[in-house]
Amino acid sequence: MTIQIIGYIQSGYTLKVISTLLELGIPYEIIIPDKFADIKTPEYLATKHPFGKIPVLIDDGFQLYESHAIARYLVNKYQGTKNSTVLIPSDIQKAALVEQFISVGRSYHNVPVAKLITQEISANFLGGTLDPEIIKEAREETSKVLDVYEKLLEGKDYLTGEFSLADLLHCPYYCVTTGYDDLWNDPKRPNVARWWKNMSERESWKKIIYELENIPGDIVY
Amino acid sequence: MTIQIIGYIQSGYTLKVISTLLELGIPYEIIIPDKFADIKTPEYLATKHPFGKIPVLIDDGFQLYESHAIARYLVNKYQGTKNSTVLIPSDIQKAALVEQFISVGRSYHNVPVAKLITQEISANFLGGTLDPEIIKEAREETSKVLDVYEKLLEGKDYLTGEFSLADLLHCPYYCVTTGYDDLWNDPKRPNVARWWKNMSERESWKKIIYELENIPGDIVY
Repeated sequence: MTIQIIGYIQSGYTLKVISTLLELGIPYEIIIPDKFADIKTPEYLATKHPFGKIPVLIDDGFQLYESHAIARYLVNKYQGTKNSTVLIPSDIQKAALVEQFISVGRSYHNVPVAKLITQEISANFLGGTLDPEIIKEAREETSKVLDVYEKLLEGKDYLTGEFSLADLLHCPYYCVTTGYDDLWNDPKRPNVARWWKNMSERESWKKIIYELENIPGDIVY
Repeated sequence: MTIQIIGYIQSGYTLKVISTLLELGIPYEIIIPDKFADIKTPEYLATKHPFGKIPVLIDDGFQLYESHAIARYLVNKYQGTKNSTVLIPSDIQKAALVEQFISVGRSYHNVPVAKLITQEISANFLGGTLDPEIIKEAREETSKVLDVYEKLLEGKDYLTGEFSLADLLHCPYYCVTTGYDDLWNDPKRPNVARWWKNMSERESWKKIIYELENIPGDIVY
């Protein structure tokens, strides 16, 4: 049975799972809630996600929520079954470094990036307006974090050296279609720019950007 | 060579790693930075943690930062070598549920709890003062999150049913010694109270509370 993902393509959390599926070569189907309010109903809270969030995975009757948990599950179950892409290596120390950079992403990189993306999603799909002060602050915070990444990526093509789940769980696809990618493409940060170029040349990346540029309709709030 | 952990016993992040070591029965040594400023020096940033944080693990020359990554590494390397405690099961679906609840902890539970703990650490060790408004707000937010946990823990002794790393990475030990444990011991939330009792009866918990009650000196800021 095809894997089902309840989520929105605009959601960075959903895209973390979609990109993992694409990299592993696993077919999937996205179930898009009709209305944003659908993920806050008592039924959704009781049967899908207790905090009213997306994405949710359904794999042959097995249900799981929280994007990072879903991504790790997909790797543990499907890595190596459809192609030779390695997202988490079997070597314990190498796997630990993947986890280290996943956590660095979640603790430092994704916080200011989420501010930018939330502003854009609110303005583009939920009837809100952009707050220039928040955008400015989030861009400055992202820039400071990327200055540290510039050192972390010295002499490396990817965060641990080799492509892994850590790179994939960082990728702020929505910053491409909204024009914030100058932060990662800054000549002052050549290592970050190299990493960004490596990521943007991957087939999974190209497919996601295509999908984002061709979203059929708005979220109904 | 004994595992070394750079960190402060007051830090919830450090305690996540210490509790994992205790549960797995692995000996360790804590290296306490002399001054809080020591973890912000250029040397520390370049060689220990690029964002100036603790804890850092040193295991026979292998260095790793970020508490969740360290905890998973310790489980992958040492689970089953000293005792029969299982923190991450080998079954893929069971392991996925452990990861789901680790992520739930990090996304929802630990955010308001961190506000409480940061206030207390600031007031007790760093020369700051408690802000009653922040405390009130953080208590209310924690309470709301625990109302959801009350449903998640229905009919269960631990988050996934069996004790796991997910329970361990939740535990706000510092809320015990600072008197906020009434939030988890509330008769309105009998399932949460049962979980709290189960956790507080574990040897790892008792040892950590003892250490917290007998901290030798203040952090030098």
